[in-house]
Amino acid sequence: MVGGGQGAFIGGVHRIAARLDGEFELVAGALSSDPERARASGRELGLDPERCYASFEEMAKAEAARADGVEAVSIVTPNHMHYPAAKAFLEAGIHVICDKPLTSNLSDAMKLAELVKNSGRLLVLTHNYTGYPMIRHARQMIAEGALGTLRVVQAEYPQDWLTEAVASKQADWRTDPSKSGAGGALGDIGTHAYNLARFVTGLELDRLSADLSSFVEGRQLDDNAHVMLRFKGGAKGMLWASQVAPGHENGLKLRVYGSKGGLEWEQEHPNHLWFTPFGNEKRLITRGGVGAGAAAGRVTRIPGGHPEGYLEGFANIYAEAARAIRALREPGSSIPDDVIFPTVADGVEGVAFIESCVRSSKENGAWTTL
Amino acid sequence: MVGGGQGAFIGGVHRIAARLDGEFELVAGALSSDPERARASGRELGLDPERCYASFEEMAKAEAARADGVEAVSIVTPNHMHYPAAKAFLEAGIHVICDKPLTSNLSDAMKLAELVKNSGRLLVLTHNYTGYPMIRHARQMIAEGALGTLRVVQAEYPQDWLTEAVASKQADWRTDPSKSGAGGALGDIGTHAYNLARFVTGLELDRLSADLSSFVEGRQLDDNAHVMLRFKGGAKGMLWASQVAPGHENGLKLRVYGSKGGLEWEQEHPNHLWFTPFGNEKRLITRGGVGAGAAAGRVTRIPGGHPEGYLEGFANIYAEAARAIRALREPGSSIPDDVIFPTVADGVEGVAFIESCVRSSKENGAWTTL
Amino acid sequence: MVGGGQGAFIGGVHRIAARLDGEFELVAGALSSDPERARASGRELGLDPERCYASFEEMAKAEAARADGVEAVSIVTPNHMHYPAAKAFLEAGIHVICDKPLTSNLSDAMKLAELVKNSGRLLVLTHNYTGYPMIRHARQMIAEGALGTLRVVQAEYPQDWLTEAVASKQADWRTDPSKSGAGGALGDIGTHAYNLARFVTGLELDRLSADLSSFVEGRQLDDNAHVMLRFKGGAKGMLWASQVAPGHENGLKLRVYGSKGGLEWEQEHPNHLWFTPFGNEKRLITRGGVGAGAAAGRVTRIPGGHPEGYLEGFANIYAEAARAIRALREPGSSIPDDVIFPTVADGVEGVAFIESCVRSSKENGAWTTL
Amino acid sequence: MVGGGQGAFIGGVHRIAARLDGEFELVAGALSSDPERARASGRELGLDPERCYASFEEMAKAEAARADGVEAVSIVTPNHMHYPAAKAFLEAGIHVICDKPLTSNLSDAMKLAELVKNSGRLLVLTHNYTGYPMIRHARQMIAEGALGTLRVVQAEYPQDWLTEAVASKQADWRTDPSKSGAGGALGDIGTHAYNLARFVTGLELDRLSADLSSFVEGRQLDDNAHVMLRFKGGAKGMLWASQVAPGHENGLKLRVYGSKGGLEWEQEHPNHLWFTPFGNEKRLITRGGVGAGAAAGRVTRIPGGHPEGYLEGFANIYAEAARAIRALREPGSSIPDDVIFPTVADGVEGVAFIESCVRSSKENGAWTTL
Repeated sequence: MVGGGQGAFIGGVHRIAARLDGEFELVAGALSSDPERARASGRELGLDPERCYASFEEMAKAEAARADGVEAVSIVTPNHMHYPAAKAFLEAGIHVICDKPLTSNLSDAMKLAELVKNSGRLLVLTHNYTGYPMIRHARQMIAEGALGTLRVVQAEYPQDWLTEAVASKQADWRTDPSKSGAGGALGDIGTHAYNLARFVTGLELDRLSADLSSFVEGRQLDDNAHVMLRFKGGAKGMLWASQVAPGHENGLKLRVYGSKGGLEWEQEHPNHLWFTPFGNEKRLITRGGVGAGAAAGRVTRIPGGHPEGYLEGFANIYAEAARAIRALREPGSSIPDDVIFPTVADGVEGVAFIESCVRSSKENGAWTTL
Repeated sequence: MVGGGQGAFIGGVHRIAARLDGEFELVAGALSSDPERARASGRELGLDPERCYASFEEMAKAEAARADGVEAVSIVTPNHMHYPAAKAFLEAGIHVICDKPLTSNLSDAMKLAELVKNSGRLLVLTHNYTGYPMIRHARQMIAEGALGTLRVVQAEYPQDWLTEAVASKQADWRTDPSKSGAGGALGDIGTHAYNLARFVTGLELDRLSADLSSFVEGRQLDDNAHVMLRFKGGAKGMLWASQVAPGHENGLKLRVYGSKGGLEWEQEHPNHLWFTPFGNEKRLITRGGVGAGAAAGRVTRIPGGHPEGYLEGFANIYAEAARAIRALREPGSSIPDDVIFPTVADGVEGVAFIESCVRSSKENGAWTTL
Repeated sequence: MVGGGQGAFIGGVHRIAARLDGEFELVAGALSSDPERARASGRELGLDPERCYASFEEMAKAEAARADGVEAVSIVTPNHMHYPAAKAFLEAGIHVICDKPLTSNLSDAMKLAELVKNSGRLLVLTHNYTGYPMIRHARQMIAEGALGTLRVVQAEYPQDWLTEAVASKQADWRTDPSKSGAGGALGDIGTHAYNLARFVTGLELDRLSADLSSFVEGRQLDDNAHVMLRFKGGAKGMLWASQVAPGHENGLKLRVYGSKGGLEWEQEHPNHLWFTPFGNEKRLITRGGVGAGAAAGRVTRIPGGHPEGYLEGFANIYAEAARAIRALREPGSSIPDDVIFPTVADGVEGVAFIESCVRSSKENGAWTTL
Repeated sequence: MVGGGQGAFIGGVHRIAARLDGEFELVAGALSSDPERARASGRELGLDPERCYASFEEMAKAEAARADGVEAVSIVTPNHMHYPAAKAFLEAGIHVICDKPLTSNLSDAMKLAELVKNSGRLLVLTHNYTGYPMIRHARQMIAEGALGTLRVVQAEYPQDWLTEAVASKQADWRTDPSKSGAGGALGDIGTHAYNLARFVTGLELDRLSADLSSFVEGRQLDDNAHVMLRFKGGAKGMLWASQVAPGHENGLKLRVYGSKGGLEWEQEHPNHLWFTPFGNEKRLITRGGVGAGAAAGRVTRIPGGHPEGYLEGFANIYAEAARAIRALREPGSSIPDDVIFPTVADGVEGVAFIESCVRSSKENGAWTTL
């Protein structure tokens, strides 16, 4: 693991997610850019001190040289470090599991995509919401035509933790363009909403029109993003991401409407999916329940009514990564078709989305392609 | 009553709303443009045949001439008839209660505003959702500063009844520009959402950017409207109106966020209002319950937990109209300050909103003033 | 109207309910046992002073003697006055619409049933919750076998307004055995829950076991009732009524489970009915929506998604009464089969339910028949 | 681990729960009473074949003899095997983590309690719902007096999976008295509801009155349990457990009402807790949110709005067990006060609850002590 030392939030999430199915073991880390904190964090996690590195460069080199070196690395640093860290490990022949957004700018993202292609190694991007079983089911339903021709996509991700100016490890880098990239709320959560909409619907974006705001005085990046979407083929959409919406913790919500029906899903109640076939009664499909299909079933651990949550969804990304890594161990074999995880291409698109929104907003909402 | 004959929906609603508090009695009508149907409808409603008129012109003239002529008329025709009918009655000195949108075009709307001003008579526009007690409470809370500086307004009104092409009395005129005006979903329900946002927040629109769609083949007017809003003073908003969103019956919803807290209200559960003060627990305020203030209390009929609905909210507009009319009976007296109803000015703004959205959408989403 | 003067709650509800469909006109009343208040209340309601009576005896006699005397009377007094008032009007040949419970003791109830039978007049009991459209639909579904053999019935009606000792017109008579009868929460709301369970399921009670409590010091009647139910044919049930359950306004809720599926309905969200067919997805049926059948449709005024509430449900009882009264006007004609309202028999059963619960509770929960 | 071989559900849950925080490692097992399946299951889980035992007796003996023998064992067999297995391990000086109910009869349960006492080893009972953070918060609130004097406790746990006769590994032993004990739904889920009510409220049972049913033909044990509860000090309660309630997956729900307020919690939405202080607005407290106190915080892994679920709650029991085991490693040290887990005493009470309900039901609902 790179990043995720003391005081970080997402590092702990990755560790639990990796451990949940017993597929990964944490054996080495460059857990902080501060060597002292890196060591202390490693100690806390029971790492062999020899494998607690002071930098990711050192770690990539050393682990690549060990017979028992890591097969994969999780990168959970602030955004601007994703690129150099991922580069170091890919070049060392080590698979990369990387937090989103892929990089802090599009140029890095595209270089990384090239690197992945040439390395033959995996880059798994933790757009973790794609791991929720009911999201998999929604995707399957749409792919099978249950909604008919798609028309309208409403995506939103409101939070409230930046309603006031805050100073904290979490808040500081997310509101600093040099670490976060061009997007604030947009990069942190807007990309999740965008990625989820794309993942579930399969629609491709034609163009977007964005209106970004920074409501808290002195904030350099957007804390509220309003975006109108036009998809290829004629579907339309809206996307709202906000970190200044009091009352919302992680209100990611996706609604999709087609000529034959609608779907609605909320991250805070992830075990439920509403299906509203036009001209029929509304149906509530539950994870593990009767209507949940094969795609959901493959990533479901426990029976319906016993809620699975965020960590399980996140762990599904790791479980998919494990299947893919295992498949690649055998020369000549390839990743099974039903293994699904967000790739470097999704990552490039996410960064392009951020930059296009920023560009559109600067041009007063001009319709912009990715 | 003008319009509202057999087969109409909204006419019956107006009649119940008018009757609910015992303030109005229906005594005359021009209930249909088809004289035969007008007579039959009048018979059904127990009207004196002599006061069942073949046209609104005839009715306005005859009623104005009677000692016991009507004090007020309800106009519940398709949109394009609002203007001539309202004109006839105002000129005859009769108060007008008129369905929204005010007229089918802005020019008529402005002429009507002028007429109202000169007539000294009332024009009460039935933007009925402003009659819901918890909407009154939301408005009071915002006016009192409970949300701090307003930042974000999310308004939506999805329906599904026009998901497929339908032919019915209800659907036909609403999708016919010569009767409905320039807006489809926009005029029918988008104006409700816009009016509600304005009513609750008190914010004034600076400009808007709209993307309108007609998803059903052959439909002449929009059946889905995506609009971004910028308010004077810096608040931003989104508005979504759709009649092709399967699963939604009348999903009008308003969410408002400020520097100190948020509010959320849904028309399908109108007795509840979520208040989310930043840094505090979420609170559910119920109509008739502990937290509901004076503005809600004034339009509340029954105790909390016994739901009031659409008809009661609609009736509150009629009750306010009754108070205003009664006040105007006495020479020299004026309407009490706490009487609240949508006026001809709201109506003009609503029609301007429709036409601005249409204009913006034609200009590819250009930011447009009203 | 008898009772329902100034300061009363339920009188106003009856008046709105009666007026809503324009079927009844209030023309006479004995609105209070205090003659002064009776007169003042009548003035407020615009009654002819001559028809504002000082007592119900006087009113029954005088109205029976008038050519334009009332056809029906609403009795909305405290419970102990239901019997003498109903008796006076039935004997005067006037139909009676009476609030529940029917009387304050079983002996009065049975005498009243006899009186009704002999009078040929109607007694309509306002167990108003039976008027909700989705309750009518639930009843239809069960009658048609959608749930298979019924097994379990869970009924509850929690409120919180008597959590502390209160002194008010509303509270005083409800907690006074000489006015309310043997039941406190049991009589006020427990009978509603019991009646609703019976109405929807059609099951007949075999026996019950009750545990009543008075939690507030000095209270003479129960404020919390726990009851286990055994129905004929083998179904079992539980009933909970409480007026000391903080957070509940009028939380009447009914759940019914059979061999083929379940139903769930809550009074505070009356436009929704959950149907859960075993082995299938859960379905939300909405009033006015696709799945709502003929029985609901007959008592539905407005389209789905525009909520109807308590007053509309109450008004449906009045509308049914109006249809029945109209049918009886014509000699030899009878009440149409599809007219449904709670009768004096339901009233007798309700009072028997109260007294059986009290008896069972005194005998330490012994299983008791009605 | 004892039990939990191929085809079992709860074994997998225990394994994930144990692994989630990285505190336990699975190194040995007697995974099935069928030696072939035991071996195959062990292989699947990557156990050293030498530590895949054919019986728990063998395992207890062998592991106790190893220098690196297990410190604790999870027992996840059908109920009737809990006692002999726990006995074997306790006698071998190994801590026991045991699924509920503790044993299949009270006599075994009491013997086990004695054994635990004498062994100085831990017995941790996985009444896993006590591990949910908001349950911990509810318990803290009540202990701190936020609800005042407790009056009413409503507990329920409906499921639907036994609505029809089913034959499966899961269903077979649960409906077989020789394996399950005297309770069907009562033992499987009723004990959970009872334990949860006791855990949260701290109330002690005085007596109970039960009415058990077996609705599915041929079923030997109850599939529906209705129970009235009287607690010491005067509070009353109801408990409903059912496995024949179509539409319910794992509908465990607890509501508690006192003189000052109420609480409501549902297992299917475990991150939410309603708090309804009398005379104030209803409040929704969220895990990780503003109102959640120290007791919840101690068992919370991720921020509010990112749902934690069943596995995390279950893992909290394991985490508490780990803290307790670690504390006992050091001679002379004791378990910290804030470590909370269900003990053998809770297990004895649970079995007593089952047997008392069965006895009461046989005696026609006679009030019975534990």
